[in-house]
Amino acid sequence: MAKKTSSTRREDIVETAAKLFKQKGYAATTMREIAEQVGIEAASIYNHIKGKDELLAEICFRVSNAYIAQLTAIEMDDSSPIEKIKALIRLHIRIVFEDVDGISVANNEWKHLPESALTSFKAARRDYESRFAKIIEQGIEQGDIQKVNASVALFTILSAVRWVELWYKSDRQIAPQVLEDDIVSLLLNGLQK
Amino acid sequence: MAKKTSSTRREDIVETAAKLFKQKGYAATTMREIAEQVGIEAASIYNHIKGKDELLAEICFRVSNAYIAQLTAIEMDDSSPIEKIKALIRLHIRIVFEDVDGISVANNEWKHLPESALTSFKAARRDYESRFAKIIEQGIEQGDIQKVNASVALFTILSAVRWVELWYKSDRQIAPQVLEDDIVSLLLNGLQK
Repeated sequence: MAKKTSSTRREDIVETAAKLFKQKGYAATTMREIAEQVGIEAASIYNHIKGKDELLAEICFRVSNAYIAQLTAIEMDDSSPIEKIKALIRLHIRIVFEDVDGISVANNEWKHLPESALTSFKAARRDYESRFAKIIEQGIEQGDIQKVNASVALFTILSAVRWVELWYKSDRQIAPQVLEDDIVSLLLNGLQK
Repeated sequence: MAKKTSSTRREDIVETAAKLFKQKGYAATTMREIAEQVGIEAASIYNHIKGKDELLAEICFRVSNAYIAQLTAIEMDDSSPIEKIKALIRLHIRIVFEDVDGISVANNEWKHLPESALTSFKAARRDYESRFAKIIEQGIEQGDIQKVNASVALFTILSAVRWVELWYKSDRQIAPQVLEDDIVSLLLNGLQK
């Protein structure tokens, strides 16, 4: 087998860390276990990564950067606030299918980030939330969205899509496309016919 | 000050445990800390409670019993599936305002329940979920509810209301009644006007 390049080895370490942080939690995972699962010596993991908190930061920011990049693209789009919100709901569902380990770690383990990374991560989340809320407010102003409190709408939507992360591992009897279409329909048109 | 009766002392212990389990997590809370906050000797807490896991079980089942009692009342009601679902959504929001510590512990710390209690707790949750899903299915059959996958609708609703528990402590600028009405309106009628 060809020797792995340093960059793909690093990627293996990050992916393995995401899996273990998700399964066991950040606090209970050791660098030794990550090295073992990757199949390298415990000491040589430090040739690639400074420490466990660097791994956590890389995973959390990979997720928050993905959300913000997509949000930026959606904002610049010509579509209506309703179409933008549909795109954002689909984004939240799809990103789980693409990176379930990363999403789970960013959702559940971010509190363990070291201080300066924690501050940046929270700022990124607030930025994301306020830009999403602004789209809701624009929809309300333009008369396309119900007159509700924009924060309540924002957190109801963000919270509503979070179960997909938990569902993804436990039950795949529902096709991803059905899941996505049903959730968009429920949040946009409501349960009631 | 009159000496507290044994039953109110026990209630104090349970309430204090719920607060500490919520703040620090179950694993990080000690019986000594609970005793200290109640204002009794560390040893005498065992005159009232067998151990930390008894406290956790009592809190978790207080919450699951409250949900199931209300669901039973709503099921026996004469109203339509849509009205029943509205009542259930309002229940989920109100119960947070009534027992935020208990809800938070039942939502986030239940995994620490000892084996037999864990099995019962999970069974109670599955029972609650399947009875809630049945109401959604009845609404779909009767044509009042959109044709969506009932499990997707169930988990979207249950997940959507979960942020209230987190919001409750961090931001009270929205009146509880506005919160309740906006969430019911969003889930029943959708975001789109």
